[in-house]
Amino acid sequence: MFASETQFVEWLSRLVPGRGRGLLLGIGDDAALVRAAADRDWILTTDLSIESVHYLRHLHPAASVGQRALARALSDVAAMGGTPRFALVSLALSQEAPRSWLQGLFGGISRLARRYDVAVIGGDTAIVSGPTVIDVVVVGEVRKGEALRRSGARPGDQIFVSGSLGLSALGLCLLKAGSRSRAAWASAALRAHCHPEPQIRLGQFLSRQHLASALIDLSDGLSSDLGRLCRSSGVGARIWAERIPVPRIGRARGAHQWDPLQLALHGGEDYQLLFTVPAAKVSRIRSNFHGVHLFQIGEIQRSKKILLLRAGAKPEELHPAGYDHFRKLLP
Amino acid sequence: MFASETQFVEWLSRLVPGRGRGLLLGIGDDAALVRAAADRDWILTTDLSIESVHYLRHLHPAASVGQRALARALSDVAAMGGTPRFALVSLALSQEAPRSWLQGLFGGISRLARRYDVAVIGGDTAIVSGPTVIDVVVVGEVRKGEALRRSGARPGDQIFVSGSLGLSALGLCLLKAGSRSRAAWASAALRAHCHPEPQIRLGQFLSRQHLASALIDLSDGLSSDLGRLCRSSGVGARIWAERIPVPRIGRARGAHQWDPLQLALHGGEDYQLLFTVPAAKVSRIRSNFHGVHLFQIGEIQRSKKILLLRAGAKPEELHPAGYDHFRKLLP
Repeated sequence: MFASETQFVEWLSRLVPGRGRGLLLGIGDDAALVRAAADRDWILTTDLSIESVHYLRHLHPAASVGQRALARALSDVAAMGGTPRFALVSLALSQEAPRSWLQGLFGGISRLARRYDVAVIGGDTAIVSGPTVIDVVVVGEVRKGEALRRSGARPGDQIFVSGSLGLSALGLCLLKAGSRSRAAWASAALRAHCHPEPQIRLGQFLSRQHLASALIDLSDGLSSDLGRLCRSSGVGARIWAERIPVPRIGRARGAHQWDPLQLALHGGEDYQLLFTVPAAKVSRIRSNFHGVHLFQIGEIQRSKKILLLRAGAKPEELHPAGYDHFRKLLP
Repeated sequence: MFASETQFVEWLSRLVPGRGRGLLLGIGDDAALVRAAADRDWILTTDLSIESVHYLRHLHPAASVGQRALARALSDVAAMGGTPRFALVSLALSQEAPRSWLQGLFGGISRLARRYDVAVIGGDTAIVSGPTVIDVVVVGEVRKGEALRRSGARPGDQIFVSGSLGLSALGLCLLKAGSRSRAAWASAALRAHCHPEPQIRLGQFLSRQHLASALIDLSDGLSSDLGRLCRSSGVGARIWAERIPVPRIGRARGAHQWDPLQLALHGGEDYQLLFTVPAAKVSRIRSNFHGVHLFQIGEIQRSKKILLLRAGAKPEELHPAGYDHFRKLLP
């Protein structure tokens, strides 16, 4: 079919009509951007959440499925520095799902929507014989010209990430292992996985203060999303393994198989932000933004390679190994 | 689960946060309506097209699946009198679909998008083990305050429909029967089913000229959609069977089972428009709008019943018998 999502997206953008009056940014960034009014741009994004792909019916509570589905789309708005306003929810519902599941799903969506003052204004619903498919559309707004893109990183810019990476992937490991640990590290991981919070305020801060040269959200893992940001910007990067905020792993069944750095590099669904800051503005980035920690993990370079540097080891090239819907089809 | 989509939509609108700054119309009409600029409102709609529900893999060509998926959403914009501008396409693609199918699908979407000057600006894609699910989001615009709704019909208003009703359902009958007829009546039905055209220009005309008091598109069949318009407006209707533009049926295998009036009353996916016009403005409705015929089929009444009148027969109550995703689950 296609070797990767990147290939598919490139194929698609050549095929479909991609120009229109008022269109600022089409296929290829976290979201699309259009001019809505003289002083305001609108951000449009749509995200699928699919049973057995994005969630497991017998593992994820319905409310968590709802919260994660909406968080994915809100995070795309955060990744452009915008404010989410409206959501539409399309639902191809498995005929096996009971009404209580539907109640849980929309309960999870509603709670997160209320927290960010997002109105649910429409959608579509059908019953299917296959797995449930949820598509969440979010409309956000941003002041004219202030939306941040993936494509603005320049050599010498410093690379930052928010929060803790790999925490959601660790939460999934715990869920799958059936862990009942109530230790703080395990609770944090389960919370990050089941009830992710999009980094709306951080994205707004970065765009309004004109601090970031490029911004992307970490939905598919650092190795994949840093690769996308670099490809869009026509640059490469060097990151220091010791600077990456890896998750703390305590004692649990199966825990010996979980490598904190691998989880942080390739684990998806953290919905943290990855951004680049020109050297002259780095001093304005605080290490703690309203309780969210910010970490300086590397630097943009002219060479298009992405290198992972470790103390006492040779630099190694970092290849995308996060989730890719097309790649997983390959042998 | 729920006895009907109407019940589900009522349940859902109580559950989710449905108010927001700038929101003019939320869940319950053909599309949502929000204030985008001082002089302009935006229409937002999303429509699912699902394998084995909305189309059959071995019967519908891929390009037809694409055109029908986009036409469904464009028709919702027509049903508010708006102009479509942008589309996003989310695709949960069956792992069994070959690349040629994907090419056909997006080819069909692209051709229709180009015809209406709609830019495809984003979406999401994943591979699934079940049936393919396509969700098309369309953003349209309309001058401030000019969007037409389902809810404005008043007793005495005259009821009009465009085009020919039941033609798409007849096309599906022909497809299923494997008909190879090339007669004009059969070609028209197959074209209406496989390559529907949304009535964008007619919707724009009705809203800009302030001619219609209420407007809805015929996506699920006259009996269902007239019922929705009447329920939203708090009124009922009388329609004359002889006035309904039923499809012409010639000779074909199985044709003796196809009843033109039943197809016109309950067949879905015609994407024609159903609208009501105050008596004082009826003289301004031409019978031919740029090649699309307009038919006066009945009248809005205070009593909430919907009556079907036939020459020489007792009035009978018309109940919704178009497609309903929830109702089909009931025994």
